[in-house]
Amino acid sequence: MRITPASELQTRIGKLQGFMQRDGLDAILMIQNADLFYFTGSIQQGMLYVPASGEPLYMVRKDHGRARMESGLKEVVPFKSPKDIAGILAAYGYPRPKRAGMELDVVPVELYQRFAKAFEGCEMVGATHQIRMVRAVKSEYEIAIMKDAALQVDRVYRRALEVIREGMTDLELAAELEFCARKQGHQGVVRMRGFNNELFYAQIFSGTDSAVPAFLDTPLGGLGVSPAVGQGASYKQIRRGEPIIVDFGSCFDGYLVDQTRVFSLGPLPERLMRAYEDMLRVQDKMMLVARPGVPWGEVYDQCYQYACELGYCEVFMGNPGAQVSFIGHGVGTEIDEYPFIARGFKDQLLEENMTFAFEPKAVFAGLGAVGIENTFRLTADGPKHITFSDQALAIL
Amino acid sequence: MRITPASELQTRIGKLQGFMQRDGLDAILMIQNADLFYFTGSIQQGMLYVPASGEPLYMVRKDHGRARMESGLKEVVPFKSPKDIAGILAAYGYPRPKRAGMELDVVPVELYQRFAKAFEGCEMVGATHQIRMVRAVKSEYEIAIMKDAALQVDRVYRRALEVIREGMTDLELAAELEFCARKQGHQGVVRMRGFNNELFYAQIFSGTDSAVPAFLDTPLGGLGVSPAVGQGASYKQIRRGEPIIVDFGSCFDGYLVDQTRVFSLGPLPERLMRAYEDMLRVQDKMMLVARPGVPWGEVYDQCYQYACELGYCEVFMGNPGAQVSFIGHGVGTEIDEYPFIARGFKDQLLEENMTFAFEPKAVFAGLGAVGIENTFRLTADGPKHITFSDQALAIL
Repeated sequence: MRITPASELQTRIGKLQGFMQRDGLDAILMIQNADLFYFTGSIQQGMLYVPASGEPLYMVRKDHGRARMESGLKEVVPFKSPKDIAGILAAYGYPRPKRAGMELDVVPVELYQRFAKAFEGCEMVGATHQIRMVRAVKSEYEIAIMKDAALQVDRVYRRALEVIREGMTDLELAAELEFCARKQGHQGVVRMRGFNNELFYAQIFSGTDSAVPAFLDTPLGGLGVSPAVGQGASYKQIRRGEPIIVDFGSCFDGYLVDQTRVFSLGPLPERLMRAYEDMLRVQDKMMLVARPGVPWGEVYDQCYQYACELGYCEVFMGNPGAQVSFIGHGVGTEIDEYPFIARGFKDQLLEENMTFAFEPKAVFAGLGAVGIENTFRLTADGPKHITFSDQALAIL
Repeated sequence: MRITPASELQTRIGKLQGFMQRDGLDAILMIQNADLFYFTGSIQQGMLYVPASGEPLYMVRKDHGRARMESGLKEVVPFKSPKDIAGILAAYGYPRPKRAGMELDVVPVELYQRFAKAFEGCEMVGATHQIRMVRAVKSEYEIAIMKDAALQVDRVYRRALEVIREGMTDLELAAELEFCARKQGHQGVVRMRGFNNELFYAQIFSGTDSAVPAFLDTPLGGLGVSPAVGQGASYKQIRRGEPIIVDFGSCFDGYLVDQTRVFSLGPLPERLMRAYEDMLRVQDKMMLVARPGVPWGEVYDQCYQYACELGYCEVFMGNPGAQVSFIGHGVGTEIDEYPFIARGFKDQLLEENMTFAFEPKAVFAGLGAVGIENTFRLTADGPKHITFSDQALAIL
């Protein structure tokens, strides 16, 4: 179990304060778990107050002693409710902020209103963009954890080679692979920031079920065990000659990696075999295009266009009518981080040590889906694999 | 796999409309997964528009075809963004609402602002209370599903009897029991409504780790595998003579039950053995007190006072300083539903067919926690067990 080093926290806070000074924010009030973990090393309940300069204050309601133990920040202060904030700031000699940022993409309205009241007269704006910009670029410390998560997902891949058999249900396969990951220290909780976007490990399904669209902002969906979850593995039985998708989110010590591999019992229909090879080509294309300084949307455009040239325009990244407008997404403490390898995003540029998953997938209704997904770290020379399992279609 | 019957949806919508008329709401706009599932039978992405009278409109962005298949509502309408809403309402001859409710306890600020813009001039208020009031009282259909979930959690209990052994880690035990539940059809996703309150199955831990407080609104916490999750099973090894807590949230076809049982290898210290028996007595007290028409807070007060009389005031429902102010919570499609068996709540009354978990627990720092939890259905004669596993302390 890792405790985030104080030096890491200091660097992260320093970068955030740089963005705050640039964007005229006097303070950021942070309360969401993934952000708290990143900037404090802990998710104990409370609020991190980051001033544009000076020491951040981690005000903790529950459990203060534990936050004190887990966080490398200097100032971990007990507090009861947003009403206490003014007094705490005064005690530290901090002026009341005139313009403060919050995570308005995730903070619920009623909770926000309590904070807004505590900061009456302060202009409140969204600060998720600045937070995400800091989180997008990983340190060596973070990348080392992600490599541990990649070891975990490789064990899951190899377990799949062992256990897949005709007649087992997608749910049984999912249960086996989740069990394998959990024993390796998978933390269970997989964080996806978007409202209502729930993830459980990730998505495992076979044949026609892999081509069922779902509510989630993902290229594939799956039927799931109930309309109550509406995604992922169902009770469908695995048959010969159909694609078996293992899209798995491994998560270790707070950090995710995302990997998809395709398996089959015996060869797939020629159309799917060819599509699988072509999705690997789209990945190769990305490897050539993604470089520091290239706009996120440019990587998307070039790869999307290439997929269209290969003949996949109608079936790329989802069922016709349910296609998503991205091919990749940043990965770290959440599975939907910056950078978005997505349509638009002309002005946001790739940077060295951004980490992202890239997942070209083709969906054939009634047949199934195929594709590849890996998590990469961007270097000056291009993307380097963090996930590393054998990329060949696994024909068992 | 169950599809929610249209008659269920009709009854639920009718009850909600009753509350809306009473409280002067022209419409409710509903977007959160647990609520959507309850009122539409599906969680496909979009918005359920419930007028104070007349047919509700389920406007679906992704995936419309699937929502059409899963939902028993008459009107399932494709839509792209909140901007389309005005046009759709007009097409159905619905007047623009003057006062509308939303789930302001969970809807993030920025998402809310998009809806508020689409409904400019309409007063927006919280409607979570009305939604929760409807959801709190279960139908026979819902209770039948919860009984299936109780069968699942009993399999988990019996699996624990088989697999617990000295030297295994809490994480290994958790992995085994999660695997067992998943193979029985556990849906994976366990919904807890409170902001930042993440759950993964529930909490399994032994000895001292069961007495570690955490950020979550739960009596017990646990160290967890990393400060990134900060709760639940850790790498601690199970030893003889310490309590092993299996607090498990089973979830089947959208519905949860919550059950806690305590195991040990050999007898526990006398103080813990006695505390376990006394927590059973607190449960017996609740069985006597909880009746339709009794205020939620009255059940809490009487049971809390009884726990104090038995000598547990300082250690009841959490570590000193990290105690929670509830002993029970409603359970259904979320694990933190109405009724709250909690301090306060003088005016909210128990009703027949409310379902709730009751979990008296005592925490001894450095030793561990003991307690019991069951999920009940309230009848005119008092609570009846939904979860039914053997309640004796399981000394192995």
